[in-house]
Amino acid sequence: MNIRLYNAKILTMEKHKDVFEGEIWIKNEKIAYLGETKKLQAQITGDFPTIHWDLELDCGGNLLMPGFKNAHTHSAMTFLRSYADDLPLAEWLNEKVFPLEAKLTYEDIYQLTKLAILEYLSSGITSIFDMYLIPDAVAEACSNLGMRCVLTSGLNRMNSSIEQQEQEYLKWNKKSNPLISYLLGFHAEYTCSQEQIYRISQLARKYRAPVYMHMAETRQEVEDCKKRTGLTPARYLDTMGIFEYGGGAFHCVHMTPEDCEVFRRRRLHVITNPSSNLKLASGIAPIAEFEKYKIPVAIGTDGPGSNNCLDMFREMFLVAGLSKVVSQDASAVGAERVLRMATVHGAKAMHLFRADVLAKGKLADLILIDLHQPNMQPSDNIISNLVYSANKSNVLMTMINGRILYRNGEYFVGESPTDIIDTCNQIIQKLHQA
Amino acid sequence: MNIRLYNAKILTMEKHKDVFEGEIWIKNEKIAYLGETKKLQAQITGDFPTIHWDLELDCGGNLLMPGFKNAHTHSAMTFLRSYADDLPLAEWLNEKVFPLEAKLTYEDIYQLTKLAILEYLSSGITSIFDMYLIPDAVAEACSNLGMRCVLTSGLNRMNSSIEQQEQEYLKWNKKSNPLISYLLGFHAEYTCSQEQIYRISQLARKYRAPVYMHMAETRQEVEDCKKRTGLTPARYLDTMGIFEYGGGAFHCVHMTPEDCEVFRRRRLHVITNPSSNLKLASGIAPIAEFEKYKIPVAIGTDGPGSNNCLDMFREMFLVAGLSKVVSQDASAVGAERVLRMATVHGAKAMHLFRADVLAKGKLADLILIDLHQPNMQPSDNIISNLVYSANKSNVLMTMINGRILYRNGEYFVGESPTDIIDTCNQIIQKLHQA
Repeated sequence: MNIRLYNAKILTMEKHKDVFEGEIWIKNEKIAYLGETKKLQAQITGDFPTIHWDLELDCGGNLLMPGFKNAHTHSAMTFLRSYADDLPLAEWLNEKVFPLEAKLTYEDIYQLTKLAILEYLSSGITSIFDMYLIPDAVAEACSNLGMRCVLTSGLNRMNSSIEQQEQEYLKWNKKSNPLISYLLGFHAEYTCSQEQIYRISQLARKYRAPVYMHMAETRQEVEDCKKRTGLTPARYLDTMGIFEYGGGAFHCVHMTPEDCEVFRRRRLHVITNPSSNLKLASGIAPIAEFEKYKIPVAIGTDGPGSNNCLDMFREMFLVAGLSKVVSQDASAVGAERVLRMATVHGAKAMHLFRADVLAKGKLADLILIDLHQPNMQPSDNIISNLVYSANKSNVLMTMINGRILYRNGEYFVGESPTDIIDTCNQIIQKLHQA
Repeated sequence: MNIRLYNAKILTMEKHKDVFEGEIWIKNEKIAYLGETKKLQAQITGDFPTIHWDLELDCGGNLLMPGFKNAHTHSAMTFLRSYADDLPLAEWLNEKVFPLEAKLTYEDIYQLTKLAILEYLSSGITSIFDMYLIPDAVAEACSNLGMRCVLTSGLNRMNSSIEQQEQEYLKWNKKSNPLISYLLGFHAEYTCSQEQIYRISQLARKYRAPVYMHMAETRQEVEDCKKRTGLTPARYLDTMGIFEYGGGAFHCVHMTPEDCEVFRRRRLHVITNPSSNLKLASGIAPIAEFEKYKIPVAIGTDGPGSNNCLDMFREMFLVAGLSKVVSQDASAVGAERVLRMATVHGAKAMHLFRADVLAKGKLADLILIDLHQPNMQPSDNIISNLVYSANKSNVLMTMINGRILYRNGEYFVGESPTDIIDTCNQIIQKLHQA
């Protein structure tokens, strides 16, 4: 497929590169050309000796930019949206989430993940970092609908095993499926045995691989870890050898300076989830502090059970707004830095090094943002508008791996969205009844 | 105009009334019938002896509910969106806002308000409580485009006068324009002289009228007021007689128990503006505390200069989420209460007693919400979905005073939205250059 996207404003998210007017050519899954239109006319050679366009799309002066990287989610938890809201984390997890999760089949997870994918696409999210019970089911859903997905394991005392994780790791990193990859992980320090954690660190060493997990989401979790181990989760996991090859952690709400020091030294990513942390009353992550330690921050929605929506615009506003209010400094964590977290840092945290920015040779994971709606006026500060004022209704198109999967409110995922929604509502009824 | 909206789910926002399936009839500006369809068939008499429908609209099983009441805004500040973001309130106000505002003409404010109205409509906002430099210009814009607007004065040492306010009050409360009304107000304690505040309290007594103003937005403002007067703003204004006939205050971030006592005793409304308070690092209003005092809370976006977007969905999520995290209690300030703030309490704060709920005889200020998008699944908890998961892309239709002004992304405001946007961008260029 050769696709030409022209008459666009382009924000590549490369450093120190301003928005410019131009066009992007896509050849199969990659960006084959990106530049100004006038330059282009002298360059109709190279990769496109005689160009047959399968699609030429007039972008109407709207903005092409890298898609959002949702760096922490549990997609299949769509069945828990608006179920048992307004409860504390431990009660929500133990009394509401776990009993229903125990009933889930492979097929349920496959279908429920597809529902989340529809929402990702309408939000301009082009890749997800997904932790859930049966990663294979998540992978199948993403693969079938065209979503790029980095899997990780939710290994804990009750679910999965070291052997299963190693198998999954090898299976999904064979690169036989261009959309799916796998990073080592486990649910959290407090849900795993010391032996499990030790064995994951051995796995990390064996594959020289980074490791990811929930960390310091609640104050209680940190206190409990200190009682058990004498150390905070970050320092305990570090002494267990988990971070020898890098990685990162989800949430990181309650972090000490020593924890930040571990993250800085090990070059770990913080993956922040502000909506979820508000809604479950977990706290507010100190993003401005992380920046002082030069810790790279990525952003995730967390699962739809706790958020409840899969919307990177809300998360971006919250990262900026909450950082400002917590630092008592309106200049803290500005728009450009937040947009970088939601795109470039996300890609790096997820080891998607070919999907970080828009440039020749990079993967064609990109979105078209409507700059003509009233909420994007005045039109002269696009980055501020994206972070502080844009919302899902500004997403005109979502392209993943060179395929347009969503455009002008319509889905092109090879299946009927209505069927997916109906099937999921039936599964949810079944889960609640059984 | 007789309009029939059928095949809908209906959320009236009356107390203890669940969502039900039915239809709504609108005759001119009012709701003439609201009920179940099966009931209806036996009742084709009454107001509609022979019914000629100007429009019959199949709502497709989606949700009709009261429009959102944006209970605090400065609409014309669209020219300041994404201008000088990431600055502290005082610096932003004194060095950025005031110098540009000094250049604004009546025509500028008229046009810039129209730009905001387009955004309100796309967000399901059916009335606004607007404070700005030239209320007449705001009224003209709202009147011409069909937006319901409650004006108040931004009176301060530099702008407007008691005489002007009294004139405006009388002019806009004659009820000659069904969309416009006026409530007494002033900018804030810290921007008015003691004499001005005293004279407003006399005006309040003369007309037995409520009064509204910014209050306790920043800690500094409260400290300064205490230094000057020995009292917090709430208590100082109360002793000055401002609240003898009720009213309310915008922001209310830094409130003491004694302040809450004043609000309870005087039956004042808190009008909270969470996005703005985050973005300007002002703080987080203690909404759960207000609820303990039974203080009614309404919600506003504040102006697009400080927010930066005019979106009640974002504000609703923030009221809930911030209340939970500040109270360290995930059960604090639940979805139903927040939705009530954004609709019923807003209407009451704005003295729009005929636009609070959907019922026969009430004003037809209503919206249609798409329940079929992925973010609204599972579909069984509509109120939670509205507060935690919905966004502007779920707004299918906005009707004000019986007129459909926005539907399926198109505006029906008697003017071209593109022209409005272009004119405003030209005004903004002019303001920045001059």
